[in-house]
Amino acid sequence: MSDILDSRATWLSDEELSTARERLPIVYVDAVPVRVDALGQVTSIGLLLRAMPNGQLSRAVVSGRVLYGERVRDALLRHIEKDLGIMALPRVPASPQPFTVVEYFPSPEVTGFHDPRQHAVALAFVVPIDGDCEPSQDALDLVWVSPSEASSAQFQDEMSGGQGRLVRMALAHCGVLN
Amino acid sequence: MSDILDSRATWLSDEELSTARERLPIVYVDAVPVRVDALGQVTSIGLLLRAMPNGQLSRAVVSGRVLYGERVRDALLRHIEKDLGIMALPRVPASPQPFTVVEYFPSPEVTGFHDPRQHAVALAFVVPIDGDCEPSQDALDLVWVSPSEASSAQFQDEMSGGQGRLVRMALAHCGVLN
Amino acid sequence: MSDILDSRATWLSDEELSTARERLPIVYVDAVPVRVDALGQVTSIGLLLRAMPNGQLSRAVVSGRVLYGERVRDALLRHIEKDLGIMALPRVPASPQPFTVVEYFPSPEVTGFHDPRQHAVALAFVVPIDGDCEPSQDALDLVWVSPSEASSAQFQDEMSGGQGRLVRMALAHCGVLN
Amino acid sequence: MSDILDSRATWLSDEELSTARERLPIVYVDAVPVRVDALGQVTSIGLLLRAMPNGQLSRAVVSGRVLYGERVRDALLRHIEKDLGIMALPRVPASPQPFTVVEYFPSPEVTGFHDPRQHAVALAFVVPIDGDCEPSQDALDLVWVSPSEASSAQFQDEMSGGQGRLVRMALAHCGVLN
Repeated sequence: MSDILDSRATWLSDEELSTARERLPIVYVDAVPVRVDALGQVTSIGLLLRAMPNGQLSRAVVSGRVLYGERVRDALLRHIEKDLGIMALPRVPASPQPFTVVEYFPSPEVTGFHDPRQHAVALAFVVPIDGDCEPSQDALDLVWVSPSEASSAQFQDEMSGGQGRLVRMALAHCGVLN
Repeated sequence: MSDILDSRATWLSDEELSTARERLPIVYVDAVPVRVDALGQVTSIGLLLRAMPNGQLSRAVVSGRVLYGERVRDALLRHIEKDLGIMALPRVPASPQPFTVVEYFPSPEVTGFHDPRQHAVALAFVVPIDGDCEPSQDALDLVWVSPSEASSAQFQDEMSGGQGRLVRMALAHCGVLN
Repeated sequence: MSDILDSRATWLSDEELSTARERLPIVYVDAVPVRVDALGQVTSIGLLLRAMPNGQLSRAVVSGRVLYGERVRDALLRHIEKDLGIMALPRVPASPQPFTVVEYFPSPEVTGFHDPRQHAVALAFVVPIDGDCEPSQDALDLVWVSPSEASSAQFQDEMSGGQGRLVRMALAHCGVLN
Repeated sequence: MSDILDSRATWLSDEELSTARERLPIVYVDAVPVRVDALGQVTSIGLLLRAMPNGQLSRAVVSGRVLYGERVRDALLRHIEKDLGIMALPRVPASPQPFTVVEYFPSPEVTGFHDPRQHAVALAFVVPIDGDCEPSQDALDLVWVSPSEASSAQFQDEMSGGQGRLVRMALAHCGVLN
C-alpha cells in the first residue's frame, strides 16, 4: 500500500506542492504515540527527535499530510509506520473524532502552533502502540517518557512550534496531565 | 482482582442496594464491543442476549455498575470479562471521555432509556475486542453483526429499553451508521 | 471581516482552485444549526435547501471551505452568516474538537459522503443558533424540523451525498436520535 | 423548579446520604464557567472561592451532585444557578458528551482528585456564561481570569483537591492551555 500511496504523492510535484502551500490550508494528521497498560491507562508517551520545518531539532509527535484520495485513517497508519517502523502495531482509533484540531500557521502569533512552510489543519489523535518501534526516515531518535516527564520543563523545552503544548493537550485528554 | 472486587461488592447487601437504588442515581458503564480491522475501522459489533431488568430477553451491550472505590476503567474491564469471558482481550480506551452519557430512568418517558429498577447514569464507551469471546454469567448468547445489520429493523426490534438506540449512537460515533 | 475574507478568497483564481481540487484534500467545516431550550437540549434542527455539487437540489447543513490563513472558528462563523444571514447569532463552540470528521470523496463508494468536485475533509460541529435566520446566497430555503422529523424517511429522502447521514450523526451526538 | 428539586433532595436525610457515601460512588457534575467572544473562543474562566470538603478554602469550579430522578442537564443548570446566581444565563451544552470524567476518591493517591467525604464520579463540562454572575450560597467569591492566569502558579497554588488540574484539562480541551 505504501508504494501506491507514494506514487500517489508524486501526483503533486515539489513545486506544485510549494505553490499550493501558499494558497490553501493543508490537511494533516498528528498522532501522539502512547503505551498503555491492560486497563488502557497511558503509561508512557513516545517523543520523536526530528528536524522541524524551521530547521531546528525538536522533540515531536508523529505528523504528516493526508494525500489526495487517502482516508484519514490510512494517513494515520502510513505516517506512524513511516516514523515508528512497520512493527509498531498502532491501534488506530475506531472513531474519526479527533481529541483536538491543531491549526499551524506560518506566523507563530496566530495560534502558537507554528509551521513556517504552510497553513496546516491537523486532526490530532492519541494512538496506543503495541509493537516494537524504531525511528525511521526523518526521525532521528525516539524516547518513551512518563506523562509527568513529558510535561516537565526538561522535555517541554526540547519541543518547539507548539509540540510541547500539543503533548500536554493529549495528556489532559487521557486524564494524565499532572 | 476479580475476587477483591467481588468482596468489595458485598459491602452493600442486596437490601441496602435496593434501598439506595430508590434514592440515588447509580454510576454505570456501558461498553459497546466491536471488532476493528488494521485501520481501526469497525467491522462488526457484538450483541449479547440477556434478560433485561424488566424480565424481557433483549439484545444488549455490556453494562454494569461501578463499585465503591473502583476506577471507571476497572469497572469497564470487569464487566467486559464478566460478559465476554476472560479471553476477550478488550482495548479499554486511553481517554476517560465517554462517547456519550446514557441516563436510564425507572420511567420510560424521561429519556427513552429505561431501567425499571433504578435511575442509572452510564458512561458509554466503544471497546475494540481482540480476543476470543464466550458469553458468560448472565449473557445467554453473543452474536457479531455488521454495522448495517446492527442498525437494521431486524436487530433493532430485538433490543428493548433503548439498547437499539445506544447501538446506533455508537455506530454514529464511529462513522459507520448507515 | 467578510470583505477581508472575500478578498483573501480571490488569492486563488477559479482555475487554480479547480486544479488544486484535483490534487489535494480541501479543508472544510460542516455546521449543523440547531435550536436549543434553556437546558441546552436540541429542540429543532435547521435544514437548508440548496443545489449540491452534483447539481441536484438537496436538504443540507451549512458547509464551506476554510481559506488560507483563516481560523476554523472564523470559517464556521463566515459560512453560517453566509447561509443563515448576519442576524443568526450562532454560538460557535468553545472547543475545537469536532463531533466527527466527514470525508467527502469524488467517488460515492469510499465513505458514502460524496462530492463530485473534490476530496474534502470536513470538521463537523453542532452550532446552536439564537437569532433570526434568513437563508441567503446559495441557500434557497431553510426549515426547522424536530429531531424525529430530521431522521424520518421524508426528510432523509430529501438529502443526498450523505447529508442525511451527517444529520443523524449530529442527532446521535446530541442524544436526540430516535 | 429549584424548589421542587430541593424538596427532592430531602428525600435523602443527611444521615442516609452519609451512609450512602460510604457505599456507592455518587454521580456529580463539574461545570467550568467560561466567557467566550463572538467566535466562541474562551477569553476568561470563572473561579469560585469556597470551602472544600476538607475544610480548606480553595479556588474551584462549579460542582454538585445529581439528584435521584434529575437529568444531568438539569443538575448542571441548578448548580450553576446556585453558585453563580440566577442571572448567569449559562449555555448548557447541546451534547451529553462531557470533555472528561473526574473520579474523586477519599484517598488522594488514587487519581489525585480528592474528596475526603466520598467516591464521586463527575461528568465535566465547559459552560459559557452570558449573563451577570454573583457568587451565592457556599461560594464566597468569584473571579474571572484569563486562560494563562488560570494555569499560572499563582492560581494553581490556590486550588486544592485536583481543581487546578481540572481547570487545565478544560483549557486544553478548549485549545487555550498555554
